[in-house]
Amino acid sequence: MSKRVAIVGASGYSGEELVRLLLQHPHAELVAVTSRQSAGQTVAQVFPRFASHPKAKALKFTEPNAATLAEVADVILLALPHGVAAEYAVPLVAAGKTVIDLSADFRLRSAATYQEFYGHPHPAPGLLESAVYGMPEVHREAIRGSRLIASPGCYPTSILLPVLPLLRAGLIRPSGIIADSISGVSGAGRKAEVDYLFCECNESVRAYGLPKHRHLSEIEEQLSLAAGQAVTIQFTPHLMPVNRGIHTTLYLAPTTAFSTAAETAALGEKIAACYAAAYANEPFVRVLEGKSLPDTKNVVGTNYLELAWRLDPRTGRLIVLSAEDNLLKGASGQAVQSLNLICGYPETAGLVP
Amino acid sequence: MSKRVAIVGASGYSGEELVRLLLQHPHAELVAVTSRQSAGQTVAQVFPRFASHPKAKALKFTEPNAATLAEVADVILLALPHGVAAEYAVPLVAAGKTVIDLSADFRLRSAATYQEFYGHPHPAPGLLESAVYGMPEVHREAIRGSRLIASPGCYPTSILLPVLPLLRAGLIRPSGIIADSISGVSGAGRKAEVDYLFCECNESVRAYGLPKHRHLSEIEEQLSLAAGQAVTIQFTPHLMPVNRGIHTTLYLAPTTAFSTAAETAALGEKIAACYAAAYANEPFVRVLEGKSLPDTKNVVGTNYLELAWRLDPRTGRLIVLSAEDNLLKGASGQAVQSLNLICGYPETAGLVP
Amino acid sequence: MSKRVAIVGASGYSGEELVRLLLQHPHAELVAVTSRQSAGQTVAQVFPRFASHPKAKALKFTEPNAATLAEVADVILLALPHGVAAEYAVPLVAAGKTVIDLSADFRLRSAATYQEFYGHPHPAPGLLESAVYGMPEVHREAIRGSRLIASPGCYPTSILLPVLPLLRAGLIRPSGIIADSISGVSGAGRKAEVDYLFCECNESVRAYGLPKHRHLSEIEEQLSLAAGQAVTIQFTPHLMPVNRGIHTTLYLAPTTAFSTAAETAALGEKIAACYAAAYANEPFVRVLEGKSLPDTKNVVGTNYLELAWRLDPRTGRLIVLSAEDNLLKGASGQAVQSLNLICGYPETAGLVP
Amino acid sequence: MSKRVAIVGASGYSGEELVRLLLQHPHAELVAVTSRQSAGQTVAQVFPRFASHPKAKALKFTEPNAATLAEVADVILLALPHGVAAEYAVPLVAAGKTVIDLSADFRLRSAATYQEFYGHPHPAPGLLESAVYGMPEVHREAIRGSRLIASPGCYPTSILLPVLPLLRAGLIRPSGIIADSISGVSGAGRKAEVDYLFCECNESVRAYGLPKHRHLSEIEEQLSLAAGQAVTIQFTPHLMPVNRGIHTTLYLAPTTAFSTAAETAALGEKIAACYAAAYANEPFVRVLEGKSLPDTKNVVGTNYLELAWRLDPRTGRLIVLSAEDNLLKGASGQAVQSLNLICGYPETAGLVP
Repeated sequence: MSKRVAIVGASGYSGEELVRLLLQHPHAELVAVTSRQSAGQTVAQVFPRFASHPKAKALKFTEPNAATLAEVADVILLALPHGVAAEYAVPLVAAGKTVIDLSADFRLRSAATYQEFYGHPHPAPGLLESAVYGMPEVHREAIRGSRLIASPGCYPTSILLPVLPLLRAGLIRPSGIIADSISGVSGAGRKAEVDYLFCECNESVRAYGLPKHRHLSEIEEQLSLAAGQAVTIQFTPHLMPVNRGIHTTLYLAPTTAFSTAAETAALGEKIAACYAAAYANEPFVRVLEGKSLPDTKNVVGTNYLELAWRLDPRTGRLIVLSAEDNLLKGASGQAVQSLNLICGYPETAGLVP
Repeated sequence: MSKRVAIVGASGYSGEELVRLLLQHPHAELVAVTSRQSAGQTVAQVFPRFASHPKAKALKFTEPNAATLAEVADVILLALPHGVAAEYAVPLVAAGKTVIDLSADFRLRSAATYQEFYGHPHPAPGLLESAVYGMPEVHREAIRGSRLIASPGCYPTSILLPVLPLLRAGLIRPSGIIADSISGVSGAGRKAEVDYLFCECNESVRAYGLPKHRHLSEIEEQLSLAAGQAVTIQFTPHLMPVNRGIHTTLYLAPTTAFSTAAETAALGEKIAACYAAAYANEPFVRVLEGKSLPDTKNVVGTNYLELAWRLDPRTGRLIVLSAEDNLLKGASGQAVQSLNLICGYPETAGLVP
Repeated sequence: MSKRVAIVGASGYSGEELVRLLLQHPHAELVAVTSRQSAGQTVAQVFPRFASHPKAKALKFTEPNAATLAEVADVILLALPHGVAAEYAVPLVAAGKTVIDLSADFRLRSAATYQEFYGHPHPAPGLLESAVYGMPEVHREAIRGSRLIASPGCYPTSILLPVLPLLRAGLIRPSGIIADSISGVSGAGRKAEVDYLFCECNESVRAYGLPKHRHLSEIEEQLSLAAGQAVTIQFTPHLMPVNRGIHTTLYLAPTTAFSTAAETAALGEKIAACYAAAYANEPFVRVLEGKSLPDTKNVVGTNYLELAWRLDPRTGRLIVLSAEDNLLKGASGQAVQSLNLICGYPETAGLVP
Repeated sequence: MSKRVAIVGASGYSGEELVRLLLQHPHAELVAVTSRQSAGQTVAQVFPRFASHPKAKALKFTEPNAATLAEVADVILLALPHGVAAEYAVPLVAAGKTVIDLSADFRLRSAATYQEFYGHPHPAPGLLESAVYGMPEVHREAIRGSRLIASPGCYPTSILLPVLPLLRAGLIRPSGIIADSISGVSGAGRKAEVDYLFCECNESVRAYGLPKHRHLSEIEEQLSLAAGQAVTIQFTPHLMPVNRGIHTTLYLAPTTAFSTAAETAALGEKIAACYAAAYANEPFVRVLEGKSLPDTKNVVGTNYLELAWRLDPRTGRLIVLSAEDNLLKGASGQAVQSLNLICGYPETAGLVP
């Protein structure tokens, strides 16, 4: 059955991708898009890229209004800044609607952690318990039964999907994890700030948000759940001059020591088996084989995350690398995966050609 | 003798290049830099690129104030938006100072044309007569004796230097000139606007300002002066994803018809001779030979403009191509050329390694 | 009915796009891909981007062989260099197969013109008469009935679609046409040449192929057919640092003079009506309205060409601008349009989400 | 006294930068440039960027020949692939010349380690003992007295300058060091390989050379010398779409535990003091203060390396970040620093404006 879907805050980069995915979705029906600054314009006018799509010519942006949204839509996707998203989630959930929130507002179970990392009290702590972290590979069944999905952040997705299976299998230690990530500029959003001007980003690479980036909170919470103990990690994000894509390099400590070729091969088999068990049947996670290493250009524009791993007997470490499109598997694509699960559509609907 | 130089509006891209050129200038002394938003910070703080230069660590940005500037400096460079520049130029010229204005405020002789193209009355029409268009290859002697220099725009420089010698020599018709230009994004300035965000410019090329870009006014005025008759041209600027550089392709109609190989060769000799007469001794204009064509990457970071030309016997047209750094020969480098001329320094001082 | 399709020379950029389009095509069945250097590898290995597609994992590249291709496929797409394509086209056409050639080998009716522009005798002049220039907007019916399609070049597409309707309607003069184009680097192909290394193209813009680019031959032949007289044009291609996209700016002379606002408006109505008649029902040509101008980023990844036009009463010229993806509407997408027509599929099959 | 300098292998990216630096050098005299493929052409023809420099117009590339080089030059800079460089170094050193080698041939003291990492026997093991690792901040006096300088690699420079002072001061443990680096594409050289084409690198980020990159050998040897014990590190290089620049993020374990604010501040003071002692008087190392973090765009085109550090009390780690131009401080600029030291010129000659 076709569900009516609305997108709130559809004029940013994640919002634009949600619009694209839903314009081409075989089952869901896009019924409303809202944006304060674009209200009154058609989707075709705001996004010339979609100008030839019949619905883009017909559908107009409106001012966001929770009551109206509750009337016209069954599922509401929120592509809003944190803090603002909750303002819409609260009345919409109360009205019995399904909300998929792409902001950070409902990703943490602890309102205290939210305040620590986001600098203000949680706007709707009462909803935290019922929210489900929208990572289908980890919480598929919970997503199916939920009315409030907290769709994961882009960096967390690139880190959690490679680390969680290893941690759950006890193959790596929960301490000492390092995640070194490089992101394209769209991760900063469509904001008019000097720092993200073309000439400030082009021919530049730089770290930022050191050493306590906000995304740490949800990464550590999910890792801790998987490990059954508190996990603290090191995370360094970098900005590079591409539009889209996140590449993450993870430095991990196997629980089994290895240095000879035989020990390395034996451990390698366990890791391969662990990833195969976790992802062989997952539609959107690709474990690379042979000499292949992840490259953002192979996943940009798709909902796939690809990963590869190497054991280094010189240092005793396991290196895992991942690549994803920060706006798709890292945001809007993953949100549509949740939408598909909730609505009973095939999980890949609208996400593969 | 060392002149004291100040830069007003030094926090934009042209201002930053002026700072760079004057920090390394062998004769001029940079004594003041102003910027509303950066006042109180050192040059080293505002421009980390210059952080190791002793003067950059010592010199602080101040609020712009004409009276103060008149006290501390002999020459004042204005890197301000049009309309604003005149507010400083008027009192500084009145105080007997030398002003080199990088804005459009004094580039036109006619206040009426200014109003037509810039949309507001000229802020100081009384100064227009005494201002000199600061293109040393064309107005060198006038620049030497002037107190008010209107430094040319970036597109006009890329068009005028290739066209003026041909027009003066009567080798091309003054009608039907087409200039098709492609500019890097720094031409738009360091302004926080969505249109110039990295993701909006990267992997994109687009025309803009069609069909009546403001720079047309000064281009046509200079061409008309050279032709001795009113000249109207076609000009299409495009934006491309590079930081710096302008490439211009000019479509010109020779006054002599040519179609045979002999006619083409004969006309080619005249054109070569014309350019040699104009530029063989010019330090910053390079006429390419053989199969070479201009490439912005060969001039970016320098004050050189390079040009090449081709006769097309199939169409009877002369094609001339030029490349320059929009922030140097197209703005700050050319302004320092004028500064050198006015101060009696070697014209290339601070502009060649 | 599902047709069996093979791609010869599938390892270049156009070939890769053909593979992508056919992997997702709802009706055609991709049965063979050939490439000397990739023979023996799966599509998934050669193009990691498609690694999750079931057919990409199964289908292996083979050595190209006309006899084998004739056995396994109904339609053969040739993504080969000019000169080489004919070697496959001749036996395949003789075997009764349908050939869609993306090279220049069959785009011209005259073997003499081919020799003039390509520097060697035409390899199969006997086939020229039966070949159809594969531009559906112009030759749709002929394509439907043809066995040999010469799919147009990328620059020609960006020039012909904007110009042909105006020329046929007599709204512009056939003489004096100027086409100024800017292309992304994929237009140069996946060739290991120093000129196309990242560092040689990044932060660079340059013209090339002046003044007699090979694509002129097919542009002029098609324009001449439309005008009913020989047409010679000026064409300047430029290279810019983007992966994909061509932007073309056309300078045209209307047959009707205009200078007053009323005259301009009247002519504007005729042009608008001409484009509406030509393209209102075309699925892949978009005539922009209002203040919008073409931007390659709005068409890259799609089979759309977008265009806009401006009358300039100052110069009496009509400026038309177009943008397309050089690998899609400029190559592989247009070829699939022809494939759809020939096979009786909906023309947009596999080309719109 | 002016020394006569020759550059062997001057047509690559490092060679081009050596040419640029020596054309503008106030004391050294560039007397010869060699390149097999460019022999017979002038520097101006091979590098259009230098076309206006008088010497570039006069000086011609020659075929490389050790005997001839020994006649015309006092100092010979080798910008050649490893393995090839030694072929020239051996006879030139034997002829009493000073050789500054930018390849890896003489960077290691151990011929066995060379063979392990470079895959072939060392071509001139007898010279290893006399070679000096040309990092002036570490081996300044030894460089002054040497005839054979092994100029450091680009990644090693970005790692060693931040790590060595901390290691020597005992502030960090020699075990567990992780270096995560991101490099621009010029690091791969001016080689015609598909992997480094514009379209293969643009809009892409990927790791490579995992887990045992060749540069590890010289990094670990220098770290071991400083630590007085064998040091093994983890090193992951990544490729990003910029022309120039390396950004390195280092994960280090302080020898002193810290978690309270007071402990963190106390340790921070020691680190600051350590870096101040090492670099306050170094002309080309910049330790950033306040909130500033390294950004490649602030050092590209210069010989500076900038670094910043952060203590993370959550994880107990010290994060150090560095940025440099891989072709300057990472290659040719550092080589000219050594040249200046050997020739008795000011160390910054030709390297600062």
